[in-house]
Amino acid sequence: MKLNPAQLAEFEEQGYLFLPDVFDAEEIALLNGELPAIFAQQRPEVVREKGSEAPRTAFHVQTWNPVFERLARHPRLVEPGAQLLGSDELYMHQFKVNAKAAFDGAVWQWHQDYGTWAADDDMPQPRAMNIALFLAEANEFNGPLMFIPKSHRLGKLRAGHDVTTTSYPLWTIDHETITRLVAEGGIVAPKGAAGSMLLFHGNLVHASGSNLTPWSRWIVYLSLNRCDNAIRRFKRPTYIANRDFTPIAMLPDDCLTAYARERRPAAE
Amino acid sequence: MKLNPAQLAEFEEQGYLFLPDVFDAEEIALLNGELPAIFAQQRPEVVREKGSEAPRTAFHVQTWNPVFERLARHPRLVEPGAQLLGSDELYMHQFKVNAKAAFDGAVWQWHQDYGTWAADDDMPQPRAMNIALFLAEANEFNGPLMFIPKSHRLGKLRAGHDVTTTSYPLWTIDHETITRLVAEGGIVAPKGAAGSMLLFHGNLVHASGSNLTPWSRWIVYLSLNRCDNAIRRFKRPTYIANRDFTPIAMLPDDCLTAYARERRPAAE
Repeated sequence: MKLNPAQLAEFEEQGYLFLPDVFDAEEIALLNGELPAIFAQQRPEVVREKGSEAPRTAFHVQTWNPVFERLARHPRLVEPGAQLLGSDELYMHQFKVNAKAAFDGAVWQWHQDYGTWAADDDMPQPRAMNIALFLAEANEFNGPLMFIPKSHRLGKLRAGHDVTTTSYPLWTIDHETITRLVAEGGIVAPKGAAGSMLLFHGNLVHASGSNLTPWSRWIVYLSLNRCDNAIRRFKRPTYIANRDFTPIAMLPDDCLTAYARERRPAAE
Repeated sequence: MKLNPAQLAEFEEQGYLFLPDVFDAEEIALLNGELPAIFAQQRPEVVREKGSEAPRTAFHVQTWNPVFERLARHPRLVEPGAQLLGSDELYMHQFKVNAKAAFDGAVWQWHQDYGTWAADDDMPQPRAMNIALFLAEANEFNGPLMFIPKSHRLGKLRAGHDVTTTSYPLWTIDHETITRLVAEGGIVAPKGAAGSMLLFHGNLVHASGSNLTPWSRWIVYLSLNRCDNAIRRFKRPTYIANRDFTPIAMLPDDCLTAYARERRPAAE
């Protein structure tokens, strides 16, 4: 899956790119079938919402779930990243499923991912980005991702360490700065069906609201980094900030459906 | 301002009615000019968000602000209520400004207002409703009101007393019921500019999400009740559940601009 020049230019200009219909219904059903068991696990990689048992994030799922192990090396996720980051030598800095669970999904305050990658992990340059795959519809009601377009052009912004708002500590950006950025760039919330993808720059300022609806808004994030931009501080656990800088070896495009076929009981 | 038969039928069917452009820019500017001083007051009527100094609600503003004193008797708010409730003898059960403040505005869980009016105030029948006036734009990002259309037809639903989620106790509806209602009716979030109005039935199930944006989503609520349906329990303070059942005497349609004219310094 190659991005065309118009798509590359749009990413450069806006800081993100929305791609509908990247994964089909069979692939999404296969991935979603794993989620109940993933979120049910009691292990450090599964972070719960503050004051609730609802899942917030399941980290490093590729090491403990065979379907997500394949997804983490899927060419439809990795190839666009290679194009946009200008290197075929990419490693996975982070891989997770965010639940934004029905009724209980809580906010993520305004932040740049690179802010956290730099402050906590000492990543040298913002040559890293996110590939997000919708496992459920994101609509206007269930806390979709909100972006401030073009904010990636401002470099790394000053941030404060928020350890109180939610269960997951984050380097967040102050209200005055957000007010100024929104006055310039506005806010967008790309919405779409399960199977859609959102690619966004490590410096793009984003947030997401609460989810009060009965519709969970599951999303997978593959954070790709260039191998020549590997992190230099190992403060966070490896399941949050991966210390294995081996380049990703992509699987075939049909790796998910092939896995499902292999596992299906043989016909009589 | 009279509602036409199609509007009356729509309210009956859906449980709400959205009316754009009811108040003009001059009137809205006059009302908004009062808000900073209103929200700055330290008094029991001004409720703050949990764990923050951000205002959540200012109750009973008509008794302590002269502009809102006029708004509470404005014919564009009261007349449609009289039509929909089928009586010219209406009193104000509650009058407030909800701030849904920029960055800090927190959620209101799914509830019916009549659920609280019945449980706390012993209001005999759901012959009461809300007239909401937008003092700021409500858009998809700043925590707009969410309705479950047609849910008013189910009567009063079982509710539990939520005293933990936010700073304001509310009788809220359980997740299982909401899931069922949304499967039937969906969710809508009427959006529009300052000056728009939303009329909704006391039994319409509604909620609103967090506001992470720099755009406060101020809204005035006039809760109208029929005088022959007055509350019978005085558990809550009168500034939350009004004990004065005097019928509202409407003011002229230009009462806001006339007030502004009177107060303007005379030309030399």
